Amino acid sequence: MKIKNDLFLRACKKEKVERTPIWIMRQAGRYLPQYRAVREKADFLTMCKTPELAAEVSIQPVDLIGVDAAIIFSDILVIPEAMGMHLEMHEGKGPIFHHPIRSEDDAKMLKDIDPTKDLKYVLDAVALTKKELKGRVPLIGFAGSPFTLLTYMVEGRGSKNFSEIKKLLYGNPKLAHSLLNKIAKAVAIYLSAKIEAGANAVQIFDTWGGILTPDDFREFSLNYISKIISELKRKDEPVIVFAKGVHYKLKKLSKCGADVIGLDWTMDLKSVREKIGKRVALQGNLDPTVLYADESKIREEAKKVLASYGKGSGHIFNLGHGILPDVNPENAKALVRIVKEESMIFHSKN
Amino acid sequence: MKIKNDLFLRACKKEKVERTPIWIMRQAGRYLPQYRAVREKADFLTMCKTPELAAEVSIQPVDLIGVDAAIIFSDILVIPEAMGMHLEMHEGKGPIFHHPIRSEDDAKMLKDIDPTKDLKYVLDAVALTKKELKGRVPLIGFAGSPFTLLTYMVEGRGSKNFSEIKKLLYGNPKLAHSLLNKIAKAVAIYLSAKIEAGANAVQIFDTWGGILTPDDFREFSLNYISKIISELKRKDEPVIVFAKGVHYKLKKLSKCGADVIGLDWTMDLKSVREKIGKRVALQGNLDPTVLYADESKIREEAKKVLASYGKGSGHIFNLGHGILPDVNPENAKALVRIVKEESMIFHSKN
Repeated sequence: MKIKNDLFLRACKKEKVERTPIWIMRQAGRYLPQYRAVREKADFLTMCKTPELAAEVSIQPVDLIGVDAAIIFSDILVIPEAMGMHLEMHEGKGPIFHHPIRSEDDAKMLKDIDPTKDLKYVLDAVALTKKELKGRVPLIGFAGSPFTLLTYMVEGRGSKNFSEIKKLLYGNPKLAHSLLNKIAKAVAIYLSAKIEAGANAVQIFDTWGGILTPDDFREFSLNYISKIISELKRKDEPVIVFAKGVHYKLKKLSKCGADVIGLDWTMDLKSVREKIGKRVALQGNLDPTVLYADESKIREEAKKVLASYGKGSGHIFNLGHGILPDVNPENAKALVRIVKEESMIFHSKN
Repeated sequence: MKIKNDLFLRACKKEKVERTPIWIMRQAGRYLPQYRAVREKADFLTMCKTPELAAEVSIQPVDLIGVDAAIIFSDILVIPEAMGMHLEMHEGKGPIFHHPIRSEDDAKMLKDIDPTKDLKYVLDAVALTKKELKGRVPLIGFAGSPFTLLTYMVEGRGSKNFSEIKKLLYGNPKLAHSLLNKIAKAVAIYLSAKIEAGANAVQIFDTWGGILTPDDFREFSLNYISKIISELKRKDEPVIVFAKGVHYKLKKLSKCGADVIGLDWTMDLKSVREKIGKRVALQGNLDPTVLYADESKIREEAKKVLASYGKGSGHIFNLGHGILPDVNPENAKALVRIVKEESMIFHSKN
């Protein structure tokens, strides 16, 4: 099916666009009353596992906020769960694995996955969402990076100091690499299956790569991201890598095979574009808390982001991290409208 | 009193040293059984407020770990407390202000401080520690940056998204600036009084500056750090600024008046030295979790840090953040020994 609004896909490939496309990380989420209404009927994991519900909330922000891409409602931790770990989602406390991976024996419990069986519910949700979108906007699939997934699997719950994952990296790097390899393999076939099911692009979230030193980031995170991208079965579906807090190794990051690098709000778009903008498109990077402000401040800050990237294609507007649950949806809507209005002048008409 | 081991002070001023000095952020802390023994007799704030106990734990790491500087045992939140806020320290949950500052009326409750009265206990602790150190090593005093203190005062407790402080910055920047001014004034006279009481150097901790965009960091944090340094009453006592997560605006940061910039473990010492190393000395930046590893890994990583800074003076070895409470003290001791051994070759003998 031809996609009517393909601005997002064109920007990912640095093709000419009439205006800068925008979508919002966590756009299918708790800040929307319509999302909370669905969430009242089912818990988080049930929503992930029920294609009708996942499709419903994935499409909500397209209708309600006006974004230029949908992202499938799911969670990065469905992979560890499919590998055999028992996952609990706690409102407030976040995800919990009661039996985290700490030893070689723990690691042996993890099985190889077959996404068409173990994660069929995600693929069904992708197919259904795709169908219900009727080609209005592209659909993005996603996964966590191997290092980010391993961090959750080893820590078992939210962590402040990341003691357990660091103990593994420094104490038993061989086991860490073997686990990262196994997870990378799972992520590669999972994302390939998502593309096969209809995703028009995929994003890899490296939420925790930024807790590493530059050398460790390359060794334990970036290498496995590159591996996944090289193994992906795709036609021309773009790959986005969002590595929060990774302000170093930008040149290496830009060579991982991704079409787009996502940036958090502490990065200067202009100087990153100067460094790596010839090779990749850039996504980001408004501070998510700007959406707490009034419309004039939102406009001011959105214009700063647009101006920082500057003229020409290759920019996908987004927040520098997920939208916060207590943001007024009207402000998200205003941001989308503002970016549509204000970005025209950065793209030439001919 | 002449200081016998003044390596730290010389390195701060980029003077010639025989080897690289080392101290460890949070070196007077829970990882030491001898600290925990004191802590069992008194709660955290009582320890801060009892000069004999504060002096005892401040000196412990000099005796037990062999560091080249002592830092006075205290907490950055004694300033908001002295300004009139009720502070509670919870093991595990961290500090809590039950009545955070959210409005102009809340702000009016904050009084100007006179450190010689309101924080006499800190000055007494500094004087006593200084006396009991008998000139063995220098004594460092410290304070939080105005932005970091304001973040705690506004959030009221640990925060993940920093929603409340950002709402203040974006919603009422005038009030934010007025509060930052008031806090900066308090920090400047507090640090001046600490120097007067005997501190040989002071460190300003900007724990939360890194949650800001580069522009906001300059506006809401760096400006006030510069203001404090320009108002400090000091002779030749060096000033260290540690701004965790601040990987941008390095040139501006190096011009804030500080003698030393402290770096977290995500920064590349070599490239930072190239950028700003002519103007300032650098402190840091071993990943604190390396102290979970065995001695050979600790040596390998410590050597990497030393080599990254390279030859010549102007480097103070430290962790890139505070030492973690579950680190084996033997590993801290090993690190200090290793740095003393391995750093000689980076300093010429003549």
